[in-house]
Amino acid sequence: MHQLTVSTAQRDQMLEITAEVQGVVDEAGLTDGHVLVFVPHTTAGVTINENADPDVVHDTLRRLDKMVPWREPFDRHGEGNSASHIKASMMGSSVAVIVRGGRLQLGTWQGVWFCEFDGPRSRRVWVSAV
Amino acid sequence: MHQLTVSTAQRDQMLEITAEVQGVVDEAGLTDGHVLVFVPHTTAGVTINENADPDVVHDTLRRLDKMVPWREPFDRHGEGNSASHIKASMMGSSVAVIVRGGRLQLGTWQGVWFCEFDGPRSRRVWVSAV
Amino acid sequence: MHQLTVSTAQRDQMLEITAEVQGVVDEAGLTDGHVLVFVPHTTAGVTINENADPDVVHDTLRRLDKMVPWREPFDRHGEGNSASHIKASMMGSSVAVIVRGGRLQLGTWQGVWFCEFDGPRSRRVWVSAV
Repeated sequence: MHQLTVSTAQRDQMLEITAEVQGVVDEAGLTDGHVLVFVPHTTAGVTINENADPDVVHDTLRRLDKMVPWREPFDRHGEGNSASHIKASMMGSSVAVIVRGGRLQLGTWQGVWFCEFDGPRSRRVWVSAV
Repeated sequence: MHQLTVSTAQRDQMLEITAEVQGVVDEAGLTDGHVLVFVPHTTAGVTINENADPDVVHDTLRRLDKMVPWREPFDRHGEGNSASHIKASMMGSSVAVIVRGGRLQLGTWQGVWFCEFDGPRSRRVWVSAV
Repeated sequence: MHQLTVSTAQRDQMLEITAEVQGVVDEAGLTDGHVLVFVPHTTAGVTINENADPDVVHDTLRRLDKMVPWREPFDRHGEGNSASHIKASMMGSSVAVIVRGGRLQLGTWQGVWFCEFDGPRSRRVWVSAV
């Protein structure tokens, strides 16, 4: 298991980590199999989506924020970040990627994105090969 | 593949099953690898989220219910539980967890949660090691 | 890694691919393990849900469309399909299924569904065994 470190600058932010995950595959010498990219936090997640147009990230974060407003009158959680927790579950705590010939197998426009929902913070990402 | 049984008491409920999943890892003698926690139901799911403050669970279920109301005028499904199905897909049918030294590798505040969206029911959870 | 091809006819559509995934398991001669079903697109996803009543699919797509409207005033992405991207991340880019005795282990009512959110298009699905 390899640990990556990610530093976020905003409350909601998507950071592409495709190159870092490929770096773990290189370092581990994995040629064929899968990698699991796992986020050990409860107010951040990980997803695979477009890495070409930054406007997709903008729209995704705004739309998530509209679906999951920062405050709801019925919220009880004292830290006030319940929105971050549900966004994390909606994106998920892990993604799996197929590896062939030592390369992550992703679609033309796909990248692996760390999803911060309660930043800015220093965060960890665990990458494990199968 | 090991089967766990879960008994739910409410329509929407999150039940922590981290200890039960660790029990499967212990019983299987898995030291290093991954476990897949899979829910073989279509109106229940599984997620990884905070296991410290029960208010997070309360807020998560209320917010999901606001996003996905129990009834919509356009619903056609005769059983009347379409909300349960989409909530199940939003949380997902499985989570993967890394295992090292015989221990589930989770973040400080993370737990594995069975998500009931059409209870009360008796439910199954399958745990498989890789 | 085996590649399946899927052809969609509508903007939003769920197509069941359970038999095709089982076909890959048969062809690969996999008896015990897991399969990863991965969608290499950024405006389509994959989920596991009910395969008995087509009304569940209808209601799921309509409810997703209500949560994620096709247009939002704050959208910036020039292609105008930001809704497709976020729906893809909400369903996810992959599902994992346990295989025992050469058979996909799914619940009684579960099927594997390709989720088109920006069709009609010709799409690919990758299936990889562990």
